Order: sequence, then structure tokens, then C-alpha cells
Amino acid sequence: MRAGFSFDVDARDGLARSGRLKTPHGTVETPAFMPVATYGAVRGLSPAELREIGAQILLANTYHLHERPGEAVIEGLGGLHGFAGWTGPWLTDSGGFQVTSLSDRLSIEEEGVTFNSPLDGLRRQLTPETAMKIQQALGADIAMVLDECQPPEAGDLDRGVAGPRVEAATARTRRWAERCRKAHDRKDQALFGIVHGGGSESLRRQSASATAELDFDGYAHGGLGLGEGRSRRADLVAASHEELPEAAPRYLMGLGRPLDLLDGIAAGVDLFDCVIPTRNGRHGVLFTSQGVLRITNARYRDDPEPIDPGCDCPACRHHSRAYVRHLLRGGESLGTRLASLHNLRFYLGLLERARQAIAAGRLEALRRDLEGTVDTPIP
Amino acid sequence: MRAGFSFDVDARDGLARSGRLKTPHGTVETPAFMPVATYGAVRGLSPAELREIGAQILLANTYHLHERPGEAVIEGLGGLHGFAGWTGPWLTDSGGFQVTSLSDRLSIEEEGVTFNSPLDGLRRQLTPETAMKIQQALGADIAMVLDECQPPEAGDLDRGVAGPRVEAATARTRRWAERCRKAHDRKDQALFGIVHGGGSESLRRQSASATAELDFDGYAHGGLGLGEGRSRRADLVAASHEELPEAAPRYLMGLGRPLDLLDGIAAGVDLFDCVIPTRNGRHGVLFTSQGVLRITNARYRDDPEPIDPGCDCPACRHHSRAYVRHLLRGGESLGTRLASLHNLRFYLGLLERARQAIAAGRLEALRRDLEGTVDTPIP
Repeated sequence: MRAGFSFDVDARDGLARSGRLKTPHGTVETPAFMPVATYGAVRGLSPAELREIGAQILLANTYHLHERPGEAVIEGLGGLHGFAGWTGPWLTDSGGFQVTSLSDRLSIEEEGVTFNSPLDGLRRQLTPETAMKIQQALGADIAMVLDECQPPEAGDLDRGVAGPRVEAATARTRRWAERCRKAHDRKDQALFGIVHGGGSESLRRQSASATAELDFDGYAHGGLGLGEGRSRRADLVAASHEELPEAAPRYLMGLGRPLDLLDGIAAGVDLFDCVIPTRNGRHGVLFTSQGVLRITNARYRDDPEPIDPGCDCPACRHHSRAYVRHLLRGGESLGTRLASLHNLRFYLGLLERARQAIAAGRLEALRRDLEGTVDTPIP
Repeated sequence: MRAGFSFDVDARDGLARSGRLKTPHGTVETPAFMPVATYGAVRGLSPAELREIGAQILLANTYHLHERPGEAVIEGLGGLHGFAGWTGPWLTDSGGFQVTSLSDRLSIEEEGVTFNSPLDGLRRQLTPETAMKIQQALGADIAMVLDECQPPEAGDLDRGVAGPRVEAATARTRRWAERCRKAHDRKDQALFGIVHGGGSESLRRQSASATAELDFDGYAHGGLGLGEGRSRRADLVAASHEELPEAAPRYLMGLGRPLDLLDGIAAGVDLFDCVIPTRNGRHGVLFTSQGVLRITNARYRDDPEPIDPGCDCPACRHHSRAYVRHLLRGGESLGTRLASLHNLRFYLGLLERARQAIAAGRLEALRRDLEGTVDTPIP
């Protein structure tokens, strides 16, 4: 890895590993979960609160920040670290996923992606070169290559095959990766490649090995969490890892529910991000040690207990289920804030437990323990 | 005043006074500003943050809490202090103002107010007796009588007269006050009467003197801030004070902008509440020592300065104008939170300065200093 960065594995448990990813803005204990700060802020939460609940690295969306306020503003204020007040490590996605999922009149060609901006309706183009330029201006510790993320044809993922559209997108992602590699010249920023290949193990192996040839600082799995089953996904991830350099960190993009994270960890993933904890929190779906609690349910109307009596987050330390329920039902923003804090603390705490379990050689026991509770709705 | 309460004046400056209002849940330095926690939460802010910026007492809306979650839920969780996690003093309004301003098919009769609930459309009635019952269950340190707040006829306020509708409402408010006094029997809760009389000084004097006969723990001015000029209002407030017992705290309901508060203080008011700091904050209108700053203005796009370099609030300590602007423009709830924190800190700081000025006999100098800046838009 480049100067200022290092990745050290401290413990292994099967394919899983725990370690430390050093960046110019601090060290991340891995496996790590990155809260999503789309526009440079995690829904209603302050940097101090995020630190308090154990966040070590945040993810921001390149495309959204490019649209507003624009990377020049952020660069002028010291990059994401200076602009958003989170002085620890940042990762930015490439914008490709957002562009393809949010835009209309999308046209993907070899040069790049052309689309209508949802903000002003004007025509924009994102190319591997502009994706690098924007991310270098944003100044995150870790940047991502521009990839083409094509949804698999129905059933392809589960059958373990990739149709021609996914095959072509995987090949193009590899060509774009090469252009990103050339266009990227910021010395204090790591650049990760992205492995695609839909539901096909052989195509993912091929993509991983071809991407690794470009010698990135780390590697991500793209295009997963789109409907494939848990065990299929674990196989795809583990197979790709065999083609990737052992010494580089691995990132499973956009996933997922708690057990999805544990599956990824068991397959050797080091980094995760997902909007589930904040989005579910907003909708009153709260993760607890006893299962999933729907706080808007009438049974919590006068419940004096904290969301999870075993949780140490500010919402559980200071407030009752009845109060959080009342706030969320009334659309009070303090409700969203408390629910997001709680769910993020659950995720960050889960990763802490996973790191400890790996060190103790007990990751499988942790996964079995959680299998019966963590995703189960509390009736 | 009743046991557990006391009000001591420490200093006077003209008609203004500073002192300490002791309640069962803590002492409030007066003159004081009460942030508005409509549903038991100040827009996105935690109790700890409110304490940090100097809040000493919060106001909650009886009517809104009656609708949701209902006073029985709050009472069962230890009243507002236990339910909402703000363990300092609370004041609840009577609900009368909300009912008359929010409801349709309103019918005001001697028995009480009958209206359609905006929540479920069902017919509800609020009487002096039920207003007391609800407020006693909510358990605030200070409760308010149910009043009938009739908007003055056009021009009445400025001409200094009251039309027959305001006259009748003032008389009814006095009759309701008597029923509230009889229905209220919670020993650890103070009860304040409300003076009405529209724009007529003689009617306000009459209302004040008749309300004072009922020996309330404190007195409020109702029906002001509805279009009368600053100097007319000051006259009306000062005239009423001459009829009220000197030893009781006085509260100017629902007002206002910073200079409205200083006017009230100069006329001898001890308590204020207003949604302006939080509502303006949400809309990007920020109070600073240099004047009113519209943060969404393009000139702040890349401004690295804090909202107000002289301010000690968390928004100013940690974030730039450019970042707060970005968040508010994008509808990010952290933006609302930071703007509300800042504006509330401005108000609470203004009251601190007023208390110091009264002690130093310099309130008029403070008012003159602020007259040219505090309400003036920064161009």
C-alpha cells in the first residue's frame, strides 16, 4: 500500500481476519462498519456522537456531494475532513451506483455514464477520469474506482450464472479500473478496485484476478445484495478472495443486515457499509440483543424500559421506549436521531464482538448465537 | 407562592428586574427564555444539549401532548420530567391557544371549547376543569389557566381599544380562571393566571386586577404579539404590571424577536417563550451579534467562518457557515439541529446579558446597543 497506509492482520479464525487499517487520518480496527454520511452527515448525528458510539470511518457519496455543494467547495474547506467536521478516516464511493440508480435517461458507453441530473435535469457525464478528479478533490482517505453495476437477470444470481449484460459490465468495469488507476495521482489517498461478475463464481474469480493485476490498495465486491441468497453470496465472496492479494483490505459494498455482515466477516471481508441501521431506525425498526423491535407497535406505548437494556448508546442510557416511540410517531427529528444512534451502536457493537470473537477463535459460535435472535422480530 | 416555590428579586433597573424562580425541579434565573418543546422535545435537540447552551426551563404544549401520547402515558412514566428526560423545570400552556388556532368547527361556550381534533377529526371538549386535569397529569412545575384568546379587530390594538368580542373573551377568561383555580389541587405545581384585554390599556388593567384577586402563583400576558406595535405593547404590559402583585413572576406568552424580549424585560417581564429561534433556524435565518444572517444565501457557499465567531454554541465551535448552509439546503436534519442550537444559544445568551445588565443598571444601554444590529439583516 502507499505511504501513510498499512493493513495488518492481527488474528485469523477460518477465513475471517481481524486487523488494523492505518490511514493518514487514523487507524480503523477491522472488520469495520462504515456509517453512511451521504451528504457529509449521518442523518442528524454529530461527529462527536459518532465517535462516542464507536464509529471509526465514515462513507460519503461522491455523486451527491458533486451535485451539492460541489467538490470545489469541499476541497477549499480542507476536503471532507475539514468540511464535515469528522476528522477521522473517510471513504468515498465512486458515484457509479448512485448515477445508475437515481438518474433517468441513463446512457452507459465506453467513455463513461451520461445521465440527467435529478437535481436540475441537466445532462451530466461521469467518466473514470472525472470520478477520480472529484474524489481526489473530496480528499477521502480511500477512493473507489468507477464501476458499472448491472442488476443480474432474474434468477441468474441463484443459479450461479451471469448473463451477457453482466458479463459486458464486468469487462467494462475492468477497463474503467485501468483508466481510474492511471488518472489517480493523489499520494495520500488509497484507491480500491471493484470486483463484479454477478452470480457467477467463475466470472467473479476472473474479475478479481484481472482487477488484482492493477495492484490496487484494496478491493471491493460490487453488485451483491441484489437478491442472491446468503450462502450463494458467501461462496462468491470467498471465491473472489482466493484471487485477491491476501495483504489488501476487502470491502463488501452496501451490505447489509447483521447476519449478512457476519457472513461476510466469516468469508474474510474487512469493511462494510450500509444504510440499513439509519433507514430502519427512521422507520422505527430497531435492532436489539433480543431481536428486531418495532418501536411504533402499540405495546411500547407506555414501556419505561430502554430500547435494549443491554445497550450503552445515548438513546438507551437516557430514554424509554415509550418516549422514542412517541417522538418517531410524531415525526419529531429527535426520534430519528435517537433511533439512528441506537441502530448504529448496535452495528458498531456487533463488529466489536466479531473482532473479539476472531481473536478468540469463536466467530462461528458468535454467528450461531445471533442466528436465532438478531434478525428475528420481537412479536 | 406555594411550598417548594419561591420568587426572589435580586436587582432592579427601572421597571426591569432580575431574580430567581425556585421550583421543585430547580431554580430558574430570571428574566428567562423557555425553549419550546411542543411534543416534549425541542426540534431535534437532546436534554444534554439544551443544558449545555444554558436552558433552565422548557415549555411543552398541553394540547399536543393530550392528543399524543396522552397525559396518562406521561403521568405513568413520571410526568414530563420522567418522560422527556429533561429533569429541570417545565411549564405547560393550557392548550387554549392551540385549540383555537389549529382546530376547525370550533365552538366556544361558557362550559369550554369544543372542536374537531386535527389528529382524528373526532369532537373534543376542553374545559377549565379538563385543562387542569391534563396539566396536573403532565406534572409540569408551572401550569397555565385555560384562556380564551380572541384576535383583536383590525386596528384595535394600535388604536388602544378593545372591541366587544375581545371584551367578552376577557370576561370569560376571568370566569374560567376562577374555575381553574378551584379545579387545581396539585400542591407541587404552580398555577399562573392570564391577563387579556386586547389593545385596551384600561381593559388590561381591569383584567390584571380581577385576575390578581384570585391569588395565582404568577401571571401571564395573553393575546399580545398579534400585530400591535412595540411601544403600544410595552405600555400595555407595564400598565398591567401596576395591577399585579409585585412579588409574583410575570410571563409574556409567545413573544418574540430579540428586541421584543428586551422591551418586555424593560417593562418588568420575567419569563418568555417563543418558537422564533427554532423555526427561523430551520429556515436558515440565524441570529448573530452582527445581525440576522440568511445562511442559505449564496455568499456563504464556501465561507469557512462559524455562523457567529463570537458564539460558543456547538454549531459555531465545530462547523463552518458553508457546512451548515450545505446541510440546510439539502434538508439534512443535522442542519436543523445545528441552526436551532445556535439560535437558541443566541436567545439564552441574550437573556444572560439582560440579567447582567439589570444587575449593573445598564439595561437601557444594552437595548440601545442591540437596536441597530440584532434584528438587522446582514446584507
